Amino acid sequence: MPTYTAPTKDLAFVLHDLLKIDQLDVPGYDELEPDFTSAILTEAGKLATEVLAPLNVVGDKEGCHLENGVVYTPTGFKAAFDQMREAGWTGLGCDPEHGGQGMPYVIGTAVGEMFNASNQAFVMYQGLTMGAYASIAAHGSDAQKAKFLPKMTTCEWTGTMNLTEPQCGTDLGLMRTKAIPQDDGSYKITGQKIFISAGDHDLSYNIIHLVLAKIAGGPDGIKGVSLFIVPKFMVDDDGSVGASNGVSVGSIEEKMGIHGNSTCVMNFDGATGYLLGEKHKGMRAMFTMMNHARLGVGLQGLGQAEVAYQNAVIYANERLQGRAVTGAQNPDGPADPLIVHPDIRRSLMDQKSFVEGARAFTLWAALMLDQSDRKQDGDAHGLLSLLTPVIKGFLTDQGYDMTVQAQQVFGGHGYIEEQGMSQFTRDARIAMIYEGANGVQALDLVGRKLASDGGKHVMAFFDLVKSFIKDNADNETLKVDFLDPLKSASKDLQAAAMYFMQAGMKNPNAALSGSNDFMHLFGHVCLGLMWAQMAKASTEALASGASDVTFYETKLATGRYYMARRLPATKMHLARIETGADTVMALAAENF
Amino acid sequence: MPTYTAPTKDLAFVLHDLLKIDQLDVPGYDELEPDFTSAILTEAGKLATEVLAPLNVVGDKEGCHLENGVVYTPTGFKAAFDQMREAGWTGLGCDPEHGGQGMPYVIGTAVGEMFNASNQAFVMYQGLTMGAYASIAAHGSDAQKAKFLPKMTTCEWTGTMNLTEPQCGTDLGLMRTKAIPQDDGSYKITGQKIFISAGDHDLSYNIIHLVLAKIAGGPDGIKGVSLFIVPKFMVDDDGSVGASNGVSVGSIEEKMGIHGNSTCVMNFDGATGYLLGEKHKGMRAMFTMMNHARLGVGLQGLGQAEVAYQNAVIYANERLQGRAVTGAQNPDGPADPLIVHPDIRRSLMDQKSFVEGARAFTLWAALMLDQSDRKQDGDAHGLLSLLTPVIKGFLTDQGYDMTVQAQQVFGGHGYIEEQGMSQFTRDARIAMIYEGANGVQALDLVGRKLASDGGKHVMAFFDLVKSFIKDNADNETLKVDFLDPLKSASKDLQAAAMYFMQAGMKNPNAALSGSNDFMHLFGHVCLGLMWAQMAKASTEALASGASDVTFYETKLATGRYYMARRLPATKMHLARIETGADTVMALAAENF
Repeated sequence: MPTYTAPTKDLAFVLHDLLKIDQLDVPGYDELEPDFTSAILTEAGKLATEVLAPLNVVGDKEGCHLENGVVYTPTGFKAAFDQMREAGWTGLGCDPEHGGQGMPYVIGTAVGEMFNASNQAFVMYQGLTMGAYASIAAHGSDAQKAKFLPKMTTCEWTGTMNLTEPQCGTDLGLMRTKAIPQDDGSYKITGQKIFISAGDHDLSYNIIHLVLAKIAGGPDGIKGVSLFIVPKFMVDDDGSVGASNGVSVGSIEEKMGIHGNSTCVMNFDGATGYLLGEKHKGMRAMFTMMNHARLGVGLQGLGQAEVAYQNAVIYANERLQGRAVTGAQNPDGPADPLIVHPDIRRSLMDQKSFVEGARAFTLWAALMLDQSDRKQDGDAHGLLSLLTPVIKGFLTDQGYDMTVQAQQVFGGHGYIEEQGMSQFTRDARIAMIYEGANGVQALDLVGRKLASDGGKHVMAFFDLVKSFIKDNADNETLKVDFLDPLKSASKDLQAAAMYFMQAGMKNPNAALSGSNDFMHLFGHVCLGLMWAQMAKASTEALASGASDVTFYETKLATGRYYMARRLPATKMHLARIETGADTVMALAAENF
Repeated sequence: MPTYTAPTKDLAFVLHDLLKIDQLDVPGYDELEPDFTSAILTEAGKLATEVLAPLNVVGDKEGCHLENGVVYTPTGFKAAFDQMREAGWTGLGCDPEHGGQGMPYVIGTAVGEMFNASNQAFVMYQGLTMGAYASIAAHGSDAQKAKFLPKMTTCEWTGTMNLTEPQCGTDLGLMRTKAIPQDDGSYKITGQKIFISAGDHDLSYNIIHLVLAKIAGGPDGIKGVSLFIVPKFMVDDDGSVGASNGVSVGSIEEKMGIHGNSTCVMNFDGATGYLLGEKHKGMRAMFTMMNHARLGVGLQGLGQAEVAYQNAVIYANERLQGRAVTGAQNPDGPADPLIVHPDIRRSLMDQKSFVEGARAFTLWAALMLDQSDRKQDGDAHGLLSLLTPVIKGFLTDQGYDMTVQAQQVFGGHGYIEEQGMSQFTRDARIAMIYEGANGVQALDLVGRKLASDGGKHVMAFFDLVKSFIKDNADNETLKVDFLDPLKSASKDLQAAAMYFMQAGMKNPNAALSGSNDFMHLFGHVCLGLMWAQMAKASTEALASGASDVTFYETKLATGRYYMARRLPATKMHLARIETGADTVMALAAENF
């Protein structure tokens, strides 16, 4: 069975050595001293390793089942969920006004990585709730907030997002679910939603569904979509839970992975719903949820890569097979461990340098979200908005690839379910799809975010890179191994952006044909920047006499690997991008 | 449910327009006129589409089960296997002396692609038999051949390969299975083998296991390994099947995919075995089987990519979602089909250009095998030997990626098992692992094949590329779109080989750290060469007034895509290779 070790030291390195959160002027950050964050990370790590991780395989094997209209989660999920709730983890980031702990997002992200790595299917029940919480918090009336948020903070009531229908996923304008206004101001919601994660289950008594539907008589297409709160059980004004609403589970989907999460077909038959936010502005309200959710999904890509990597390292050290080409390393044993072989190292370094780079990237993003939410920092908001599709798309594509690489280290044993490595790839696969398939992320990046506010945010990103390189130009340790490759990769990104501006003007297909490559190119530059910054932080720690020399030297060595071995991908992506749309769009549809 | 259409026209294009097999001087090729091959492809295509493909999902869902020591295959497998046997498909490539049809390997490969694409788990029962057949044919005594081969030709008796043990896969020197010589010249075999594909089942009465074991008292390590024929049921000299041998199934492995194939733990308890080939030369005898098998596994990578691609195309044409950025293409419908979107096209073109390039590559390899086997052509043998790890490693890595891309086209529907796309990725995953994990293929390529015979074969490959470019230098259609990129990619490959020669001399880790990149670099150059040759064949067909202009123009357009969009990967691989071992080998094992 796979194991999981909480990477608390690496998380602390990013929070304190790299981001120096305790020195930042962001409301709520003043208490984030190393001792304080260390206590949180340690406790969360315990829950992740001791409670959630052992249930990961159970969830995969048992899956959820539907019996007489009721969904049951795998053995042990309910007890673990109660434990998580009772220890206050569910409301970590929620508003103290609603009973939450009001922790900054940067802490929630550090904790979230560990929860996701240890049991993605499980933690989704809470994650979806927080998405619904965020939407109600942002768009709900005071009465709605008061009625729903305290119970959602504690996950006594969980939440869901109901967008997709059989005929529409990305293109929500095709939606058919109808909302019919009632005299009392409520609506009757009727329609079918599919792929509803945590749609029904036995972990909470009530479930607060957020449902997109079209108000009868409203505008066609996406402009006629509104968002509704549809509780599983009706909630009276005094907060007491009453009769069941017209919501039922059609079936549980059989999926490739995340079997521990109940993915439901949900039927709404004249269910009572309450408008959330403005009429016909449902997409806007939904996006509040989706942008948070996309960062969370990026974190899943990292989480699965991390846990898969940890297990690959253990196996590579234990499994004896063959001899090192340069001479036996374990001469007294029957063979050397796998880790002596260069191609196994290549694979492990791919994984390690990705995971640690992605960790820095997600925590930096979380910091920007805090700066945006807590300081109304428009620049942070804009840059994060630009990077959100990169975080979601790049980290989940790459995260998946890394789980495949980790599985590969196990040879035939990686293909056997008992070993647990298959689950990591099967679970990681969904992250490339939900919350907007990665092709949609790439489209969002190139078609919308890149040029938003006149390209201001991408310029800010380039400036950030440029300043970092300039400010550290005299640093001999960084120069050749980090700054030069970062500069070169960043130039590739600029060239690609320039190509889109010029060619895309004439033919939008020329830009969109390169959207996937651009997302990956951008992702590599971001991880290159993270590694250059981590290298700087490591040299500073070493210069200031840090006791754990090996830790910081390992960081530098891992970063050097990323810069030397992973960053060259930017040239390939640029070359592809610059070929434009001609070869991509050449065929008539019937000639495929 | 997914569908499969036999690509008979594309296969015929490669066989006749590209390879011109009917004009080649290879024994047995004289009858391979287009009419003849067309009849075979059509019939094989019918079996694949009408019988095998519908059973693919059944096999995945039901899997195999073990009941009272007997393995049962999924519903319908036995009837389909009988149908395949009775129509003579199993012995297509077998020697007429043993009842086979004596068809060249190039025909077996064309048929094999379709069988693998339609139902990989099913066709493995026959594939393994042919591996065992080849070993007995090459190394068996006349009596052994007479006893086993006729029944294996018809798959009345199937075969297996028993190599792996719990403690050893790649490193077979660690093997523990023992063979104790008996007075009658036979051996008693005792030990446990794992991951035995088609280890037991109900498709054939007898199963002829080829088992690697160490003769007690023989040399240590790999030099003490011998190969044995161990029938499930004893076979008398008159060919009649008698008592059961000491062979039993320990369990059926639960795997990520290919559920329709029974992957068994096999226990040998003093089972009677007959030495196949020479004592202690078991690895040599096994390699006869493994080289054929590696080509077959490369074909699986192609097959799964092909069937996944076909279904992605259907979905992309049917699923309405969004509008083309350049204006509605389906203005009367509620939305445009997915295929209008550039990133969907990019994905489909990645898949299409891979599949068609891989098809040419595998059939070219099959031709070389025929030249080697039927003409004792040492050059063909040497070049094929060099390319075998590329075919196995590159085609299965890329084939898997393509199934993931095809699945991605389906969005959320791709993650639901009912849709069938998940099975293609789960089934394709194994091909990267078995018959030597792809890291081992890369090691074989760089550590052994590249320099074999003084580098003669890789020089022959470069000469082939160079001559093709030179011979067609005046062809305006080919020049810019095909020859220039091929030249550039081939230079990258040469530079990488040169780097290995120079750096590898000083430090073998410097070469082996780049082995995976080299395998992929080599694969891209091979597919680039295939596309350049297919482009030439297409221009010739068009010039000679071929009626199906669209077919050949589509080939040219698909090839242009590969050259423009896929070949730039060679530069990235070269850049990675040239960084050598420093960053790969930097960390101490305990610092991962």
